[in-house]
Amino acid sequence: MELRQELKPFFEPETVAIVGATKGIAFGAGLPLCLSENGYRDRLRLVNPREKEIIGLPVYPDVEAIPGKVDLAIVVVPAPICLPVFQACARKGIKSIILEAAGFSETGPEGKKREEELKEFARQAGIRVIGPNCIGVVNTANRFISTQVPQESLAPGPISVVAQSGVFGNIILDWGPENGIRFSKVITIGNRMDVGELDLIEYLADDPATKVIVLYLEGVQNGRAFLSLAARVTRKKPILILKSGRSEVGRKAALSHTGSLSGDDAIFEAAFRQCGVVRSDDFFGLFDLARAFSVASLPKGRRAGIITSSGSMGVQTADTCVNLGLTIPDISERSRNEMKKIAPAWMSIRNPLDVGPSGLFGEGLSVILSDPDLDGIIGIPVLPSFVAKEFVRQGVPPASLVGNLPKELLGPGGKTLILAPIGNRAWIEILREAFGDRVPIISSPENAARVFSALARYREYLEKTK
Amino acid sequence: MELRQELKPFFEPETVAIVGATKGIAFGAGLPLCLSENGYRDRLRLVNPREKEIIGLPVYPDVEAIPGKVDLAIVVVPAPICLPVFQACARKGIKSIILEAAGFSETGPEGKKREEELKEFARQAGIRVIGPNCIGVVNTANRFISTQVPQESLAPGPISVVAQSGVFGNIILDWGPENGIRFSKVITIGNRMDVGELDLIEYLADDPATKVIVLYLEGVQNGRAFLSLAARVTRKKPILILKSGRSEVGRKAALSHTGSLSGDDAIFEAAFRQCGVVRSDDFFGLFDLARAFSVASLPKGRRAGIITSSGSMGVQTADTCVNLGLTIPDISERSRNEMKKIAPAWMSIRNPLDVGPSGLFGEGLSVILSDPDLDGIIGIPVLPSFVAKEFVRQGVPPASLVGNLPKELLGPGGKTLILAPIGNRAWIEILREAFGDRVPIISSPENAARVFSALARYREYLEKTK
Repeated sequence: MELRQELKPFFEPETVAIVGATKGIAFGAGLPLCLSENGYRDRLRLVNPREKEIIGLPVYPDVEAIPGKVDLAIVVVPAPICLPVFQACARKGIKSIILEAAGFSETGPEGKKREEELKEFARQAGIRVIGPNCIGVVNTANRFISTQVPQESLAPGPISVVAQSGVFGNIILDWGPENGIRFSKVITIGNRMDVGELDLIEYLADDPATKVIVLYLEGVQNGRAFLSLAARVTRKKPILILKSGRSEVGRKAALSHTGSLSGDDAIFEAAFRQCGVVRSDDFFGLFDLARAFSVASLPKGRRAGIITSSGSMGVQTADTCVNLGLTIPDISERSRNEMKKIAPAWMSIRNPLDVGPSGLFGEGLSVILSDPDLDGIIGIPVLPSFVAKEFVRQGVPPASLVGNLPKELLGPGGKTLILAPIGNRAWIEILREAFGDRVPIISSPENAARVFSALARYREYLEKTK
Repeated sequence: MELRQELKPFFEPETVAIVGATKGIAFGAGLPLCLSENGYRDRLRLVNPREKEIIGLPVYPDVEAIPGKVDLAIVVVPAPICLPVFQACARKGIKSIILEAAGFSETGPEGKKREEELKEFARQAGIRVIGPNCIGVVNTANRFISTQVPQESLAPGPISVVAQSGVFGNIILDWGPENGIRFSKVITIGNRMDVGELDLIEYLADDPATKVIVLYLEGVQNGRAFLSLAARVTRKKPILILKSGRSEVGRKAALSHTGSLSGDDAIFEAAFRQCGVVRSDDFFGLFDLARAFSVASLPKGRRAGIITSSGSMGVQTADTCVNLGLTIPDISERSRNEMKKIAPAWMSIRNPLDVGPSGLFGEGLSVILSDPDLDGIIGIPVLPSFVAKEFVRQGVPPASLVGNLPKELLGPGGKTLILAPIGNRAWIEILREAFGDRVPIISSPENAARVFSALARYREYLEKTK
């Protein structure tokens, strides 16, 4: 069967059995209600020999007692009784299982043996398995989830994530919404006894809702296959990675966490570069990259313009840019003349362009966005909150605080623009409202420089391998 | 006069004149009302020849018309008319001026000449001046401010900041409160025509409310004097610095921003290390250091223990620690046995200690905080929000989600503990409530590693130079 068809039930199941559904307090206990609220009540089949009814739905003693076809089973029973559950699933004709239980290869030899048995059984029965030791799948498009997540995290977005750790999946789904991160699909694969990152990268590469693929792995299954797949996919959409296990200690810890062998770091580093995969050193930096790669145009070169209302942050950002191999050229004669027409006498018209308290951030941004000598712009808007409040009180629309920019200057086809505001939440919200979906809002000026550099290098990679 | 006495009116003025107070919309217009609300109504003298009354207070045509003594003048008139204002201040016997106007040396030769004139006049008249091109002083202890700031930012704390840029001062005061940063004093010195960082470091070194001195400079006035002063002060309290202007472009930009010459970076780097000054490469990292240095004990060595409920973040943090020259030793036999008594079978008892969904974060933290083989602990508590909500609904007190730790394990004298939670705001707030003033809450796990390394190196510096 084609991979896309084979994995479809994990993302768009027609009927879902939850094996181990319970009324008690336990991992997965909230899932039936959540799925029901998300529109899956009619497609939900609950299984537990010790329950009769949960949230008003009948509970079956085992999967074989369920009338009709079952597309996908979410298995939340303890590790030692998973094999009989798998056997029942096979008899029922279920071809897709999300196995969430922990207690397998990550715990040592005994767990490893248990995982091997299950794996072999699933292989022979032709069952595809995500897990164990994971929380499975979240698909915002149809609100299908195999784990309890906040409703806010189901607002659809362009970022898809493949992670090993279930907890990591939960964290980013909790953390994302307040931080302007919206997901298409989040898949955690745990010990990946069957479905691994290779299958999922392949699947997401063809998924039109996914603009960026984000990976958090503690090691890759098959280095050679990963690299050749990645080289193919990165021509179509960006792959971003936070790969841990770089130090000796990290490698040992990764082994005990998800049973991963994470290999020599220098080799991975070089290999990632060769196949166009963009790597981040830290968690928040990874999602800054995801924001930018899902929205911003790629800069045609490394020439960055910086505009700010805080001179110090302009200096600081210019430094970071230069250290990353970007250039901060002078702005063009034409831009200089444009600015001279509107700027007060005290403003020094240069790159970085510090508009200070002139209120000309929007106008200045318009001017340098059209500058032919700059490949992209980093904007660092800051505004003391008492000033912002006063404007809002006077009925000035928030967007105009940072300029009502012509649409053709922004988004795909326009010039690269990255914003890194600093201030309180109200200020960040004003900027999200003004620029939200068309411009990436990055968590710090220094990370904006890192993001610019990564975008420029990705474009260079695409040019070089064309 | 002793420096402390000389600078006192800037922080604890008995009467304050605002020269250029106005009812209109202008820089500084909100200040009279704010100072009045902060308890300075009786001590406030407003000056403007074109106003009669502001917020119910009489307005004097010039400072000489004010009855009685004036301690401090805040001057917000435009640059070209500052000299006559200074002359009037001298005649009135005012010895301290905060000069907020821009339009001086940062704008070019003409402004520089104007600044030189004022400077020479003030020197001859024996007037101390903060500024120009700044927002002056915020002192949370007595709520004295020379600029409009949000009320929340006036909650007193242990961090004092000296910055050049006024906007930078505004940003951190807006940004701080929501991010767990509380200030003692914030002083922006702009073009520092008289009072500079040397005076202020000296002042803050003897200020009992200041536990940590944070500097954001685009260059130092007098390198040799700075280093000898810093070497003396860092023996008493930490000095943290974000120094921009490292690249050629940054240096040029710094020159136009605050007229600073920022010099060769490698020299500064080495010099900072030699005098125990702790340097940060980025804005948020600077305040992570400030949080930690104002609260945490210094670790006795470089051996870090890591405890987390997210295995992946444990691996990621261990990597960062090792890359920074810290070690992640095995936990002691005793700790291992303690943990074995309470841990479920699946838990792998090692460093990093991943307690997963066991709910044993608090217990594990207690155990490794007492481990003689570890010099300090980085905790990365994560908890899916639906779990946290369920606990709270059941009336479980937030603090117990992360363990009710014995007080003697925390704070001064206890072992170094740094927390870097990831999650939504509600989760971060739970941790702030549980640990708030006794444990630094750091913005990312990777920065927690950086902070640990900086604390350890600072202690090494103190030992070495004892």
